[in-house]
Amino acid sequence: MIRVAVIGGSGYTGGELLRILAVHPKVEVTYVTSREYAGKPITLVHPNLRGFYNMNFSQFSFDKLGDKADAVFLGLPHKVSLEYVPKILEMGIQVIDLSADFRLKDPTLYKIWYGYEHPYPDLLKKAVYGLPELHYEELKNAKLIASPGCNATATILAGAPLVASSLLETYKLISDVKVGSSEGGAKPHEGSHHPERQNAIRPYEADGHRHAAEAEQELSLIAKRDVKVSLVPHAVSSVRGALASVHGWLSSDISEMDMWKKSIEFYKGRKFIRIIRSNIHPYPDPKFVIGSNFADIGFAIEKRMQRITMFSAIDNLMKGAAGQAVQAFNISRGFEEDEGLRIPPLRPA
Amino acid sequence: MIRVAVIGGSGYTGGELLRILAVHPKVEVTYVTSREYAGKPITLVHPNLRGFYNMNFSQFSFDKLGDKADAVFLGLPHKVSLEYVPKILEMGIQVIDLSADFRLKDPTLYKIWYGYEHPYPDLLKKAVYGLPELHYEELKNAKLIASPGCNATATILAGAPLVASSLLETYKLISDVKVGSSEGGAKPHEGSHHPERQNAIRPYEADGHRHAAEAEQELSLIAKRDVKVSLVPHAVSSVRGALASVHGWLSSDISEMDMWKKSIEFYKGRKFIRIIRSNIHPYPDPKFVIGSNFADIGFAIEKRMQRITMFSAIDNLMKGAAGQAVQAFNISRGFEEDEGLRIPPLRPA
Amino acid sequence: MIRVAVIGGSGYTGGELLRILAVHPKVEVTYVTSREYAGKPITLVHPNLRGFYNMNFSQFSFDKLGDKADAVFLGLPHKVSLEYVPKILEMGIQVIDLSADFRLKDPTLYKIWYGYEHPYPDLLKKAVYGLPELHYEELKNAKLIASPGCNATATILAGAPLVASSLLETYKLISDVKVGSSEGGAKPHEGSHHPERQNAIRPYEADGHRHAAEAEQELSLIAKRDVKVSLVPHAVSSVRGALASVHGWLSSDISEMDMWKKSIEFYKGRKFIRIIRSNIHPYPDPKFVIGSNFADIGFAIEKRMQRITMFSAIDNLMKGAAGQAVQAFNISRGFEEDEGLRIPPLRPA
Amino acid sequence: MIRVAVIGGSGYTGGELLRILAVHPKVEVTYVTSREYAGKPITLVHPNLRGFYNMNFSQFSFDKLGDKADAVFLGLPHKVSLEYVPKILEMGIQVIDLSADFRLKDPTLYKIWYGYEHPYPDLLKKAVYGLPELHYEELKNAKLIASPGCNATATILAGAPLVASSLLETYKLISDVKVGSSEGGAKPHEGSHHPERQNAIRPYEADGHRHAAEAEQELSLIAKRDVKVSLVPHAVSSVRGALASVHGWLSSDISEMDMWKKSIEFYKGRKFIRIIRSNIHPYPDPKFVIGSNFADIGFAIEKRMQRITMFSAIDNLMKGAAGQAVQAFNISRGFEEDEGLRIPPLRPA
Repeated sequence: MIRVAVIGGSGYTGGELLRILAVHPKVEVTYVTSREYAGKPITLVHPNLRGFYNMNFSQFSFDKLGDKADAVFLGLPHKVSLEYVPKILEMGIQVIDLSADFRLKDPTLYKIWYGYEHPYPDLLKKAVYGLPELHYEELKNAKLIASPGCNATATILAGAPLVASSLLETYKLISDVKVGSSEGGAKPHEGSHHPERQNAIRPYEADGHRHAAEAEQELSLIAKRDVKVSLVPHAVSSVRGALASVHGWLSSDISEMDMWKKSIEFYKGRKFIRIIRSNIHPYPDPKFVIGSNFADIGFAIEKRMQRITMFSAIDNLMKGAAGQAVQAFNISRGFEEDEGLRIPPLRPA
Repeated sequence: MIRVAVIGGSGYTGGELLRILAVHPKVEVTYVTSREYAGKPITLVHPNLRGFYNMNFSQFSFDKLGDKADAVFLGLPHKVSLEYVPKILEMGIQVIDLSADFRLKDPTLYKIWYGYEHPYPDLLKKAVYGLPELHYEELKNAKLIASPGCNATATILAGAPLVASSLLETYKLISDVKVGSSEGGAKPHEGSHHPERQNAIRPYEADGHRHAAEAEQELSLIAKRDVKVSLVPHAVSSVRGALASVHGWLSSDISEMDMWKKSIEFYKGRKFIRIIRSNIHPYPDPKFVIGSNFADIGFAIEKRMQRITMFSAIDNLMKGAAGQAVQAFNISRGFEEDEGLRIPPLRPA
Repeated sequence: MIRVAVIGGSGYTGGELLRILAVHPKVEVTYVTSREYAGKPITLVHPNLRGFYNMNFSQFSFDKLGDKADAVFLGLPHKVSLEYVPKILEMGIQVIDLSADFRLKDPTLYKIWYGYEHPYPDLLKKAVYGLPELHYEELKNAKLIASPGCNATATILAGAPLVASSLLETYKLISDVKVGSSEGGAKPHEGSHHPERQNAIRPYEADGHRHAAEAEQELSLIAKRDVKVSLVPHAVSSVRGALASVHGWLSSDISEMDMWKKSIEFYKGRKFIRIIRSNIHPYPDPKFVIGSNFADIGFAIEKRMQRITMFSAIDNLMKGAAGQAVQAFNISRGFEEDEGLRIPPLRPA
Repeated sequence: MIRVAVIGGSGYTGGELLRILAVHPKVEVTYVTSREYAGKPITLVHPNLRGFYNMNFSQFSFDKLGDKADAVFLGLPHKVSLEYVPKILEMGIQVIDLSADFRLKDPTLYKIWYGYEHPYPDLLKKAVYGLPELHYEELKNAKLIASPGCNATATILAGAPLVASSLLETYKLISDVKVGSSEGGAKPHEGSHHPERQNAIRPYEADGHRHAAEAEQELSLIAKRDVKVSLVPHAVSSVRGALASVHGWLSSDISEMDMWKKSIEFYKGRKFIRIIRSNIHPYPDPKFVIGSNFADIGFAIEKRMQRITMFSAIDNLMKGAAGQAVQAFNISRGFEEDEGLRIPPLRPA
């Protein structure tokens, strides 16, 4: 049993980690912290977990962590992780960081997208970008895993087979993303107030979204050339779920069958990718992955214009956050990548 | 491994059974039928199950069933089960019937509530009402399990500790139930059309709902006297979830603490009952059981009027249908009652 | 043109008043205040009203009010209205108060339900309870109108024809109310956070809700005897809409046709009451009154138990708040009661 | 008073026309037909309109129409309108056709997009495309108005100021549209079943949507060059509302302020266009136009990539269908374009 800590356990990602880890056969959750709820029962904040945890939230301390954990999931805000990661690594504890602080290889990008000078460029090199479909081998024995952002995950998984195929006229892609409200986290604010959020179809950060940086890094690696991504997110009424519609212009004709084969081929052997082609449900829909770690991938081609749209559908808290983090952790530990994650999606939900 | 068949596998209850059984460690699903989709892949109808089933739906035949199954879950409409159950039992195969056809002990009630003369009064005696919290012992080795209705389950679980406590002025209860749209099944109709159903708060069958018969049967057993229940269901916007608010008048004062203790005591040892009392979430809410087999039970007392309301929250497809059927099956087979059902609820969802 | 002020114009009730008054042919909105948004455009807070208001919110001052308004709608929190009403009345300006501060005739009830000693028992006598269906004549020329609460409005309108008919076994009623999220106002809080509120079916204040006091006052007047009401509200997923299900036990048989006639008779001539009886939509549903001032009233009788449930469906911001306030104002000014309110409900919505 | 008929009055567009026309001061609704509901009360199908119509639906007959109407709104399926329009025009009755049958000027496009040879190319020339923001002058005295499709309306209104500005690198646009469920009409089907539709984020007709033909026709007219539009619609959870995100690549830098001015300039004097730029709500959202005929227009520019996204938000049943039809009718009759349409949007809704 690997002893696991969840730092920042009171948010939605923390809660989702606790939900998964509660029934993960190779893991024991030993330490869960929350600044706001320290001393209070986990189930006060996460009433769904009644019966699964008797523990209280703790205040964080490096000493306690050292006593209690072999691996730690960090569910902290961007920039806050920086204060924890180097020290925890020094203590010999594995880190799976769900913030953005170690996702980008090029330190100068932190200045541009996150507004701070990155203090640990060396750690950026050591960190493995925790998207197992692209970095499976590197994840084995990884000590620092930088778990991808949800909009980035959706965009990359949709775009990867396309940029890999050398079919594009230009390598400037539009990723028009639609997301549920849980993506915004557990803190109430004006825009998340139910009467304001329900029935909204609301663009946000539409003049440039940070996850584009991750998407460009990863897609450029695959394409072996510079790929640019304009990521335009929209808040819609769902609670869970994200759909990325990645639009591009084809340089030449390709049949749907060939594109389907290329997609199948690209993701061969990856357990959480399902390539969609069906009469009744021809395209991916987050509805069919809710509660699971699957990413459903599909596409549409408009022949007269040589326009292709790649779609990917994920549960933003699972494949977009906690589920993917556990998947990467599994690989790093030599477990099956779907250990503790063999959960069929809920339907209807 | 017990070989299990699901008859009527294309509806929501069938889909939910398949979802649970796909990862149930003691069970192998060998035979799944659907009149409408025979010959077509299970995953065409249930796209969430892509990757879990490669099988097609079959046409039903008693011979095939005999070859393939040790136990069968029947997800058929009311009255249709009657045509299957006696013959399947004769074949020595265990039946878990999710229709209403074997739930009521008194055959005359079928005439009143379902409009038909029950042809097998003897089987009614043999059938075990599959609510494990009330019939745990009888379920052991049961050959015919009549799995309860969802509104009945919610009403009975809420009402049971109350009628058991001899605190009521009269034994006429109002069960005001609020349910999500999945309770209406997978067939589209006028009232289930999204623009009509979304944002509805719509009473239905408000002049008498059939599940009252089950609720009266079970609550009378517990109270050891005649209990009457008026069940008034309302369709609300959720997809999953049912909340029963069971209103009664108390004959004497009781403190919240005492009522809480009585509830705890009543359900002692039952793994899927959680008695709710909390600062942040003081009452049950189906939101916190989505995707799981839990029933959350709580209550409120209005002192000045001696009014008590017992609440129970369930996922109508899990504890209200498929989950409960598997729970009862587990007990009948000597497994842990939560085998294959140790799934924490999804949150937020 | 009557010059009208809206005090507390940045909340949902304020916004709804502004929406109605913008196109009310007999009214000019001259003064709109907001503590939080003073100096900022009305349309910054209410983007739906772009094109209808060029005004900014003002800080409140009695002098300004005196200069600008003949009538004032007060959209202030409970207890805060007390500080404004006496002085405004002295200034000779008509007050339509949407808080609870002048709704109850018996001053001792304020101690019990609102926790304060009412300082103006004389004004309580002068105030007219602004439910036009019950107080039409008194509203003519009323100087102080106490506009009813939304849950109270729904409960009273449903219960009135029933208690008027002398058909009840006992005069203790259960009003099981289901409400949309806009009822909770415009301020975000934990429970209103979209991921928490969406798909909830959540009882609240279930041990006694304040609006019961209004309901008891008004229903006792009609019944000419003491009526007790236990009001149990539930939050459901809709944004707008409230349904009250008022449950009672009948003392004797009554046919549906007779009950329908009694209801029709009771509300004869009242423009905003629609008595529902239909094949396709047999019961009221807030869905069919969204955006309008209508209250749809209907009922169900379960004969075997002599249980009756009266239903009323309203838009909580219209008939439950701003619409009803304007309706009462219209009557007080000798206008048609539906002046500026002849808006058919939106469907589907 | 102009006597008006609504042919095909039982669907959502028909219902919305009836809702508007019920309170339109210059119009009397004299004749409403429905094949399915002939002989039955209008309010049986449209319960929101109780109190506004005492009429029944009629079977259609040209004779009756000739007796009763000066103008007719046709809410019929595509291709069916063809059988009515020429004859009605011959009778001297004005036609506002809400189908696609007279929207396209080039008859060959009907073969391509709708699969039929257009039998009346001459009428295509006479028909006026009923988008008042672009064809105001032509609409005056128009005898045949072809009312635009909802996705086309959203796409054109968003794209028009952009293609007018000569700022684009290429004139191939992506219109990524998100729509509510009412766009699919009043007939229930598998995909509209509430448990299937709620929480969906589902692309449909993603390999080419017919409304692209209208969008290309109109945008090419404005751009005075060939504009291509790839329209990719997505079903989201709302009931009402459509948002078009029209993505393009800029050929040169333009500041937000300049683009804002260009948009303001382009739509100068048009009553139902609101150009959005605000701190709190920076982009259009259909939430803020619900129940009204407004189109809110805004945009975002991602400087580093010279990507522009134009957004337009409409209520698909109002500006996307019935409201726009009445607006065009108003202009054709010399009324104010907002006659009967001066309704502020509902909020929150």
